[in-house]
Amino acid sequence: MISVEEALARILAEIPTLPTIHVPLPEALGLVLAEDVIAQEDIPPFNNSAMDGFALLSQDSKIHAAQPPRLRVTGSVAAGYVADHAVEPGTAMRIMTGAPVPPGADTVIQVELTRHGGPESDWVEILQEVEPGNNIRPAGEDMQRGQLILPRGTEIGAWEIGVLATLGWASVPVTRQARVAILGTGDEVIEIDQPLQPGKIRNSNSYLLEAAVQRAGALPQRLGVALDTVESLREKFSQALNADLILTSGGVSVGDFDLVKNIMSEQGEVNFWRINMRPGKPVAFGHIGTVPLLGLPGNPVSSAVTFELFGRPVLRKLQGHTHLLKPQVEVTVEDGVQERAMRRHYVRAYVTWHNGHFVARTTGNQGSHMMTSLLQANALLIVPEGGAIVQPGETLKAIMLDWPENAS
Amino acid sequence: MISVEEALARILAEIPTLPTIHVPLPEALGLVLAEDVIAQEDIPPFNNSAMDGFALLSQDSKIHAAQPPRLRVTGSVAAGYVADHAVEPGTAMRIMTGAPVPPGADTVIQVELTRHGGPESDWVEILQEVEPGNNIRPAGEDMQRGQLILPRGTEIGAWEIGVLATLGWASVPVTRQARVAILGTGDEVIEIDQPLQPGKIRNSNSYLLEAAVQRAGALPQRLGVALDTVESLREKFSQALNADLILTSGGVSVGDFDLVKNIMSEQGEVNFWRINMRPGKPVAFGHIGTVPLLGLPGNPVSSAVTFELFGRPVLRKLQGHTHLLKPQVEVTVEDGVQERAMRRHYVRAYVTWHNGHFVARTTGNQGSHMMTSLLQANALLIVPEGGAIVQPGETLKAIMLDWPENAS
Repeated sequence: MISVEEALARILAEIPTLPTIHVPLPEALGLVLAEDVIAQEDIPPFNNSAMDGFALLSQDSKIHAAQPPRLRVTGSVAAGYVADHAVEPGTAMRIMTGAPVPPGADTVIQVELTRHGGPESDWVEILQEVEPGNNIRPAGEDMQRGQLILPRGTEIGAWEIGVLATLGWASVPVTRQARVAILGTGDEVIEIDQPLQPGKIRNSNSYLLEAAVQRAGALPQRLGVALDTVESLREKFSQALNADLILTSGGVSVGDFDLVKNIMSEQGEVNFWRINMRPGKPVAFGHIGTVPLLGLPGNPVSSAVTFELFGRPVLRKLQGHTHLLKPQVEVTVEDGVQERAMRRHYVRAYVTWHNGHFVARTTGNQGSHMMTSLLQANALLIVPEGGAIVQPGETLKAIMLDWPENAS
Repeated sequence: MISVEEALARILAEIPTLPTIHVPLPEALGLVLAEDVIAQEDIPPFNNSAMDGFALLSQDSKIHAAQPPRLRVTGSVAAGYVADHAVEPGTAMRIMTGAPVPPGADTVIQVELTRHGGPESDWVEILQEVEPGNNIRPAGEDMQRGQLILPRGTEIGAWEIGVLATLGWASVPVTRQARVAILGTGDEVIEIDQPLQPGKIRNSNSYLLEAAVQRAGALPQRLGVALDTVESLREKFSQALNADLILTSGGVSVGDFDLVKNIMSEQGEVNFWRINMRPGKPVAFGHIGTVPLLGLPGNPVSSAVTFELFGRPVLRKLQGHTHLLKPQVEVTVEDGVQERAMRRHYVRAYVTWHNGHFVARTTGNQGSHMMTSLLQANALLIVPEGGAIVQPGETLKAIMLDWPENAS
């Protein structure tokens, strides 16, 4: 048996990063920047006012003989427009938030610190002395032309979209999304809209994996369920040749080994491994032609957990991410783990932040057929190899499944 | 000025939850269950084997005279099929993982604990005594017919999709996604693919908000930018009458107040508020006709932060979520906050988990025009009202923006 770390390292060593494509800005959400973003302009592009008020020369705000200075208002400048004349000594211009500071003026006083005769007033009294640069946002204060703003490898969230829009990146170079072919296997598997028949179960894995692939930012394609025949598997794999990854569930345990191994070997090469973990001991990895294939176990829980540990990092590497793994924290396990597993045990649990530390409760019976053990779980507790019982109140590492990878 | 909490409470009081629709299972990802999911069948549906091995009567595994019992193998049962005869005393059947346990057998021994003559062997020797029920997963052990599996209000993640598939829910009752009309305002705003012109800035807010709306699981529609005229605003609002929410940016500060207020008042009712916060003091809320309108400030940072504090909870309520707010934790602020704000200050920061506690670093100049202060931020530090300087090493509450709401 090999360790989880060794299996993951062997898999990732075979996974490339996908090519760069250009997509319209709104489609870049969630993808990874494939080039550095360097500002081509100063942002803000011009000195502008942070307030509604009056633009003036700071020296004209100085109070003489206890009288507020009174200035002649020569016009106004709104956001989106530029002044058609300069501010001269003894004069001021009305200015709105975001409007360019007119030439001549070196400061802005907010309207609340003035007295004036209304919106069209041709005079203003300055009630407080102001320094040069007051309420002025200088050109380039936020981003300077030539500055590296977002490095290659940045995951594009909503706020990065805003920055890219500001810089005029209507089209964005990103690592392309992975296309993932998803294949269920097994004569026992029927479609989800079918009534149960003796000996049959519904195809939950394909739907679970489809959703998990989507959550990883990739593009799933369900190929349905292959029967346990060479012909059926061969036919299904032939539909997956354009994929960037094939995900299978089932067909990797002892009893199914030979059939799937044969069909895979004839079209590529595949390793079947026994990984020192529970759930999910049997995992396959290899290629069908040139397409990487990750074969997950058929038990729904094993399939879900091995996808998180192996499938999601694979998709993140394909899609250009630099952080591949979920963060881990230490948690106090309130209810302990009574089930003994000689292999490393990934226990589904619900972790909360409580009184300054993380506490976990497990989600009940941890059998690999217990789908309900997935419900409400937001973490995997790691019980080390060796079969220890974890007493209530003991501490374990937890993989935080609903935190982003880059929190680590 | 009103507090953030008061503004949010007033807004949410006016927000309904959208109607229930039925969607195909794969489209339910990220949505909220609108009805309880009760199992209509036992899962697993039948007693089945947890291992590849042999089904037998447990009494036949008892060792007599130090000789392993030898049983006649009468056939085999694979996953997806049912045995065509029963297991009699003195006999066994080959059985695969997931296959129904044949009648007569009360236990399964894994293949590794037997000796036999190969895959077609008609005999098997039992090398270890086994208890009744060994390696058998009883019908209903995971879910029982009639049991509440997922309560109404559950957010549907990948694992819930798997459970729904198992139960045969090919169509799922969910609260419908919100349609959100997004409107930029201001004569200074040009499209993102345009070269900059004197006095103009690009329309970053609409794209940022579009992405943030998507991240909240809703359906954004950008309406472009309204000029600062009654006609332009009226025309844009007329396109938003089918929306569940109108989000505007800009047009809510002192200078723009009257124009937007007039057009809004003629078509509905709108409150403009000064909220005791920085960034984002001016926020509007009301209705255009029957459609709720949330008016965010025009500064990109203010727009981004007020969306997180007000817009996202509104969308979550519309879409049936029960947890509306992001979790908060206490963090040590490594670099402190030197900028004094009399209003409550939401400081962008990057929070990591380090040596057993959370540490934060702020993202630099916190001016509301500093879009770069959004980059790499994963949290908002809450500096209370009153203008305190936060010294390096002091503790603050942080809103964890990239944790899910239900972690709280």
